Amino acid sequence: MIMDRLYKAAIESPVCVGLDTKLAFLPDYLNQKDWQLSDKIFEFNKKIVDATSDLAACYKIQIACYEALGLEGMKAYAQTAAYVRKQGKIVIGDAKRGDIGSTAEQYAKGHFEGDFEVDILTVNPYMGVDAIAPYYDHIKTNEKGLFVLLHTSNPSAQDFQEKAMKNDQMLYEKVGEKITQWGEPFIGNSGFSAIGAVVGLTYPEEFEKIQAQCQSTFFLVPGYGAQGGTGKDIARIFKKSRCAVINSSRGLITAHKGKTEKADFSDYVRENTRAMKEDILKWL
Amino acid sequence: MIMDRLYKAAIESPVCVGLDTKLAFLPDYLNQKDWQLSDKIFEFNKKIVDATSDLAACYKIQIACYEALGLEGMKAYAQTAAYVRKQGKIVIGDAKRGDIGSTAEQYAKGHFEGDFEVDILTVNPYMGVDAIAPYYDHIKTNEKGLFVLLHTSNPSAQDFQEKAMKNDQMLYEKVGEKITQWGEPFIGNSGFSAIGAVVGLTYPEEFEKIQAQCQSTFFLVPGYGAQGGTGKDIARIFKKSRCAVINSSRGLITAHKGKTEKADFSDYVRENTRAMKEDILKWL
Repeated sequence: MIMDRLYKAAIESPVCVGLDTKLAFLPDYLNQKDWQLSDKIFEFNKKIVDATSDLAACYKIQIACYEALGLEGMKAYAQTAAYVRKQGKIVIGDAKRGDIGSTAEQYAKGHFEGDFEVDILTVNPYMGVDAIAPYYDHIKTNEKGLFVLLHTSNPSAQDFQEKAMKNDQMLYEKVGEKITQWGEPFIGNSGFSAIGAVVGLTYPEEFEKIQAQCQSTFFLVPGYGAQGGTGKDIARIFKKSRCAVINSSRGLITAHKGKTEKADFSDYVRENTRAMKEDILKWL
Repeated sequence: MIMDRLYKAAIESPVCVGLDTKLAFLPDYLNQKDWQLSDKIFEFNKKIVDATSDLAACYKIQIACYEALGLEGMKAYAQTAAYVRKQGKIVIGDAKRGDIGSTAEQYAKGHFEGDFEVDILTVNPYMGVDAIAPYYDHIKTNEKGLFVLLHTSNPSAQDFQEKAMKNDQMLYEKVGEKITQWGEPFIGNSGFSAIGAVVGLTYPEEFEKIQAQCQSTFFLVPGYGAQGGTGKDIARIFKKSRCAVINSSRGLITAHKGKTEKADFSDYVRENTRAMKEDILKWL
């Protein structure tokens, strides 16, 4: 089961390397090459994967960065997802899709089969269970998983997620309750369900409440580094159980910007990935 | 301003043709051609656009159907969006994207420029204004617009959208309030904002409440036909103002299935599009 695999990998290192790749992040020598755009981006990602695969639990590809580059971008997305999977590592498609049942079926086909196949997809719960259920077959028969948005890391997460409901629950708690329900049939040996949740590191008190409520939910945690979360925040979460992977994107994949001493840009990415791993593990 | 253009087109005909194209919808002669997948799908869509452009206010391309077909699907999506725009018609990218600010910027770039450029994009509000604000520049300088999910047409819209908040508002009303606020700076000559909302036809009572609350909001309305909404439901909405385009997908683009008398499949699609237009306008 995919979340058992991820849990096991996260015990070694809870680091999720976020491949939110933009052209500006590519080192000059790569940007200047007379290659197709997709090949340049893929080469950048491939080097990062090669340089960090012994330090990371998984990779998260932010599909928006690839959609921004059109068809060439999508080609690089597909190549990157396939490469990570070929290395035996887990790849998360950060797509935050969400739609009615017949459309969610199409997203499930698109992201759990074919060119854009990933192991775990992030999805948006606003439309309710119709946006989630079409993935169940893939979870059962194809070793796939979901991370459903629960409490996100951004400032305006408060606009709706932190609004109080009639029964005194916050909206995000209501969503957490549903995610737990949806995930129950898919709990593996690790005690965690193949339906996990996205909870940002930037709201530590809310995280503690969520963790108490969602005991069989594995978390994808953005917000470390560039967004302000620290190793100490993670230690609080891990006190109870090793229930999460922690994503960093810009903090890792732009590590080389403005630096030239090391042989390759990916040496800097490796250095920051190792530092992040240590920053987390030293508190445990 | 894009929503002024759409409002004007919708006075003639409020029909939005939904290009939720699947391979099974293609007529046999097209499916059997020895063409690239993208060319077959594009040809299907192109014929539909050509056969209906005098009957429709706009086209909505459901990107999930194209992601399901991988890179070839995305190529067909790009070709279709460009073709509709080239005909001088308005094209809506039904992508329901939603993410933190820096990521939403990438989505804005991806869907309002380059290969996947559309006129209006559907977006998801769960993450709050951070998921909306990055599009403002494109609205101001590039004639673009948004449809934000407010109350969707699917059964489990009730899971969260119809939950009561502490102050007795339903969540969807809270979202409607925010959409109105976000849209205020972008109200055009028609009285409608470039930031519109998606409200399903399948919840007529809720629609009336929303309409009273969101007076400068133009609506994209799914749920007609296959999902159960009728011309009579639309007449109720239009009593107050012509504030919406009504989408139908399967009900139009599969009109030819099982039929062979007419010269081309697109003749059936045209027939159903005309019937839908009349079914709506006869009540007014």
